[in-house]
Amino acid sequence: MMVRRLFVSLFSIGAIVTTVNVTASANEPIQPIKAVKPENPDLVELGKMLFFDPRLSKSGFISCNSCHNLSMGGTDNIPTSIGHSWQQGPINAPTVLNANMNLAQFWDGRAADLKEQAGGPIANPGEMASSHNLAIEIVSSIPQYRALFEKAFGSDKVDIDRATTAIAEFEETLVTPGSRFDKWLEGDKKALNKQELEGYKLFKSSGCTSCHNGPAAGGTIYQKFGVYHTYETESKIEGRKSVTGKDSDLHFFKVPTLRNVELTYPYFHDGAVWTLEEAVKIMGKVQLDIDFNEKEIASIVAFLKTLTGEQPDIKLPILPPSNNKTPRPEPF
Amino acid sequence: MMVRRLFVSLFSIGAIVTTVNVTASANEPIQPIKAVKPENPDLVELGKMLFFDPRLSKSGFISCNSCHNLSMGGTDNIPTSIGHSWQQGPINAPTVLNANMNLAQFWDGRAADLKEQAGGPIANPGEMASSHNLAIEIVSSIPQYRALFEKAFGSDKVDIDRATTAIAEFEETLVTPGSRFDKWLEGDKKALNKQELEGYKLFKSSGCTSCHNGPAAGGTIYQKFGVYHTYETESKIEGRKSVTGKDSDLHFFKVPTLRNVELTYPYFHDGAVWTLEEAVKIMGKVQLDIDFNEKEIASIVAFLKTLTGEQPDIKLPILPPSNNKTPRPEPF
Repeated sequence: MMVRRLFVSLFSIGAIVTTVNVTASANEPIQPIKAVKPENPDLVELGKMLFFDPRLSKSGFISCNSCHNLSMGGTDNIPTSIGHSWQQGPINAPTVLNANMNLAQFWDGRAADLKEQAGGPIANPGEMASSHNLAIEIVSSIPQYRALFEKAFGSDKVDIDRATTAIAEFEETLVTPGSRFDKWLEGDKKALNKQELEGYKLFKSSGCTSCHNGPAAGGTIYQKFGVYHTYETESKIEGRKSVTGKDSDLHFFKVPTLRNVELTYPYFHDGAVWTLEEAVKIMGKVQLDIDFNEKEIASIVAFLKTLTGEQPDIKLPILPPSNNKTPRPEPF
Repeated sequence: MMVRRLFVSLFSIGAIVTTVNVTASANEPIQPIKAVKPENPDLVELGKMLFFDPRLSKSGFISCNSCHNLSMGGTDNIPTSIGHSWQQGPINAPTVLNANMNLAQFWDGRAADLKEQAGGPIANPGEMASSHNLAIEIVSSIPQYRALFEKAFGSDKVDIDRATTAIAEFEETLVTPGSRFDKWLEGDKKALNKQELEGYKLFKSSGCTSCHNGPAAGGTIYQKFGVYHTYETESKIEGRKSVTGKDSDLHFFKVPTLRNVELTYPYFHDGAVWTLEEAVKIMGKVQLDIDFNEKEIASIVAFLKTLTGEQPDIKLPILPPSNNKTPRPEPF
């Protein structure tokens, strides 16, 4: 109450409002997302180019953006991804948006951070099917790229460490502030309607926020999928167990972010569920042993849709051409 | 001479220079490319979204931009394209840049214009593998898209005619003015160096410009590939004959544009040739019965690289999400 009154009385004093807003949302389990101002814009720009460059794949056809499409919430919007030679991936591609807030990367947390993650798909035979050596040979054969490494790192050496550092630095900028929910958190009490607010209250009181918390509304812990009831799936994915080797980690996954969840369908690690209504119903049952009724589901879904933030403003990069020395793609 | 003196004397009078510049290049077989200012920006924006939307494909993975990648000269930089289920396409994907200057579309000219072309790959089982009906059902299920059709066309009806009209209108904007060659054409005689200028003179005197002419340096006529000698290829493509049915049209193709040719490798309808040097050598031999020596080839290649223009400035579109009514992709 104290906090709320303070907020109202200072509403028109711009310079102080920021501080007060933080206070306003301090007791909420989900915190607002802050915009990111990159320290090294040259590094970010280089990372963006690499993120969009399909020459990091064996075929010359698949880029990071193929499965983490920034036109589509940083995902591919299909159950599991398409890899080299149209191989079917084993798991749903997580969004790259706000991924810097995850405690680790991939559903099973097998990469410590974005940089480590970025190297994975390049060399995965089922994904981009290249190798770090080949990808680096391609990039370093292109003088325009070498000049950009020089600009970003101070020397024109191209290696996988630098390339993945650049991609990660670009991904650090892929945050989505400005959602209606964040406006509400920051004090604009009209930003949510009655149904959305009811949904948020129910989301909290039901226990969803014990996992979906922090600025990303997820990404802060591992949790078992199927706490009260088994989640029925055809997927053989073991989750965290495949990293730790512990049976007790079977079907533990990094809790996915709910930011932009309206854009990141289909849902769950198997991508088997297409609607938010069904996803909420299942989560209530298997994780909390709650049978939400239709009205409750509708209100939680209405709340979830307020988590869609401003999407990153991306100018499509123009990639420097290969030349006579550049290793050629092998699409077939 | 008269023209040149006039140009010099009026050099600093901006308003008149334009007229004079046109005169300066009037006798050249290649004309400068002009920037395009769209009449209906809403239609262009809608077309851009559709161009980038992989939901026009059965898999939900392939968009127009997959094979006409605007980060890579409007091509995919592989010999022949990858279609649904990783099918190998029969022919090299032509650039979408400056494609509005072609007398017809596709290598064999089977589509009269960009609008007719745009409908082809969507319903081609070897490319996007969808159908016009399905693609339209998907787009029209999305209220945000319907609102954009309303804005662009005056009513929210979504059909294939409107969708391809929008894509074509976006493609009309994909022109690349401002190349060094165009600067030279427009009177900046320092825009080309000695080797490049020698290359251009040789390009003209050898007869290349009898086919590669007009603003796009191509696209104005059909010509037989293999005038003096047979072009050796594994490709079974018949070219213009498959449209007209005439034996005399065997291996006739629409002359491709040479604009941005440094970016649109590999070359020829079979995409079998990766370097400009080899492409020039082959063209000299099979089309003109000329054996260019290394120095001549180097100068023509140097000239060709001056045809790279300013690439379109594209802000990546944010696509409106599918909803519970939207037909789902079938990637596998």
